[in-house]
Amino acid sequence: MSLNTQWRLIARPEGEVGREHFEVTHLALPEPGPGEVRVRNLYLLIPPSMRLWMNAKETYFPPQPLGEVMTGITLGVVESSRDPSLVPGDYVNGLGGCQEWSIAPAGHLQKLAPRPGVPLAAYRSVLDVQGLTAYCGLTEIGKPKAGETLVVTAAAGSVGSLACQIGKKLGLKVVGIAGGPEKCAWLRDECGIEHVIDYKHDDVAARLDVLCPDGIDIAYENVGGPVMDMLIERLRFKGRVVLCGLVSSYNGGVTQNTASLMTLVNKAARMEGFLVSEYLHRYEDVVGILQDWAAEGSLKYQIEVLDGLDSIVEAIGRVFHGKNRGVQLVKICDERSV
Amino acid sequence: MSLNTQWRLIARPEGEVGREHFEVTHLALPEPGPGEVRVRNLYLLIPPSMRLWMNAKETYFPPQPLGEVMTGITLGVVESSRDPSLVPGDYVNGLGGCQEWSIAPAGHLQKLAPRPGVPLAAYRSVLDVQGLTAYCGLTEIGKPKAGETLVVTAAAGSVGSLACQIGKKLGLKVVGIAGGPEKCAWLRDECGIEHVIDYKHDDVAARLDVLCPDGIDIAYENVGGPVMDMLIERLRFKGRVVLCGLVSSYNGGVTQNTASLMTLVNKAARMEGFLVSEYLHRYEDVVGILQDWAAEGSLKYQIEVLDGLDSIVEAIGRVFHGKNRGVQLVKICDERSV
Repeated sequence: MSLNTQWRLIARPEGEVGREHFEVTHLALPEPGPGEVRVRNLYLLIPPSMRLWMNAKETYFPPQPLGEVMTGITLGVVESSRDPSLVPGDYVNGLGGCQEWSIAPAGHLQKLAPRPGVPLAAYRSVLDVQGLTAYCGLTEIGKPKAGETLVVTAAAGSVGSLACQIGKKLGLKVVGIAGGPEKCAWLRDECGIEHVIDYKHDDVAARLDVLCPDGIDIAYENVGGPVMDMLIERLRFKGRVVLCGLVSSYNGGVTQNTASLMTLVNKAARMEGFLVSEYLHRYEDVVGILQDWAAEGSLKYQIEVLDGLDSIVEAIGRVFHGKNRGVQLVKICDERSV
Repeated sequence: MSLNTQWRLIARPEGEVGREHFEVTHLALPEPGPGEVRVRNLYLLIPPSMRLWMNAKETYFPPQPLGEVMTGITLGVVESSRDPSLVPGDYVNGLGGCQEWSIAPAGHLQKLAPRPGVPLAAYRSVLDVQGLTAYCGLTEIGKPKAGETLVVTAAAGSVGSLACQIGKKLGLKVVGIAGGPEKCAWLRDECGIEHVIDYKHDDVAARLDVLCPDGIDIAYENVGGPVMDMLIERLRFKGRVVLCGLVSSYNGGVTQNTASLMTLVNKAARMEGFLVSEYLHRYEDVVGILQDWAAEGSLKYQIEVLDGLDSIVEAIGRVFHGKNRGVQLVKICDERSV
């Protein structure tokens, strides 16, 4: 095998992530020890929160140590195994890092059973933690009742577009907020979300007033900032804000209007953080539902793949600037070439 | 009887409330109709939220109509009754307005049974909705477990000081944040809250780090703004923010750092608005507990009374600037003179 190309974080970005925050090394990979396997990483997921891991401040991931291989959520194929539970050719999900190969205990990997017609990359994105996030965030924190009004921000994003579609399947009136006519058209025409607001071109407050004349029961919030204030101000009595992420704040400097939060008091409303790690016990059951929908074609998603580890910085930048359509991945190695 | 002096809101204040926002009228009071009583108002409560009722925007009270007698939470004594449930001399709580006398259906009033040694004004403040707010906000939204850490803002205020003391009685470690050495000393020496932070003179963040080394389980929040950001940033896993009020925002212009709210996500924490009207079914039971504590002297409170309806503007100003010690009332008429 070749030398292992690895991307190491060597400096913490203040704002934008750049090539200068990484060092690329090429080192020989050790052989797997007993109980371990060697995995050829195929896909690297680029979630919005990846930027947060680079900060010194602890999030739900410990801060990325400087000088180490950057943490990465990967899908790969087993090349050699010293554990009976996995054999070469098995597809696995794991935390393989931003590198070509990884060594991991077999118990840290999750074996996949890809179905025909569903792209492999979906198993490290929508049919994985993102799907679990959308489904459990909406159902467990949002506690939806059929007929209620759900507003989703970053609605054309990977989690957002799933939350919209799951909301519709649960009988909710769904309003999606996304940036730009292309994303809005995809949500409306592909995903079947009739009520879409383009925050870059529409008067969001006015459109919300038209689309949610009786207010908002559930806000599925991925963004934060002024639009979140507008949603909170329109909460109905006992409304719920599912706080799934606040991507607008990840580079700092964004604020909420404290007066808007008074709506939480006036409406006895609840804003609650959703941490997918609290719902891993529901993984099999929920991802099973999503796989069924994906296989039958009733769950739509977009996957955007950039080619090669060299595109990491560009991929992170695309996610921050909302340029990605749906979930962003980096293809580390083509699955047909292994 | 004399003409009824009434304070009517005639303009909505933008920031501070001033005399110019009111018109004072002197009109004859009609006689009570069947089922109604005439009440001589004795005490008027000045809650921080009173400023909010003056805005055009709906809160948990409908906006105060211009030209009408300003809404007021009052304690009074029945002077004449056309309902068998109340007789002259009965003390009652009600929404008697900012005026000397009021006419109300007997069913809208709550008959009191004052105990010896407990001042009458306490029955329209700490042993009333404020006590219910402190108790139910802490227990129903905060869901405290003995040994947890509770931080209370506006801790020397009427609700805050009760929340601190109830927290201690429930076995919590309590940290109170208040403004100025006098309030802090009262909290510490009178109410027995050992851990007190003076936000006007202390480095609040540094003191929180010392007093809550393992973080905060429950923040009982009355204020909002930068201190609330500090509390949210220090929430423990599954922490709770009881959002009881956001007094710093009532005059506008205050913001929260959106990045701080990410702690709600990272810690799977919850921020929930508390609306006392949702807990009126617990009134008898909770106020009974508080009355027992007050009568035995184990529940401390401060009541500040300004004399006469002419002091309304000053009283509202004192509450906004945090100059009041404990609960602020206006004495409309001396109870010994009726």
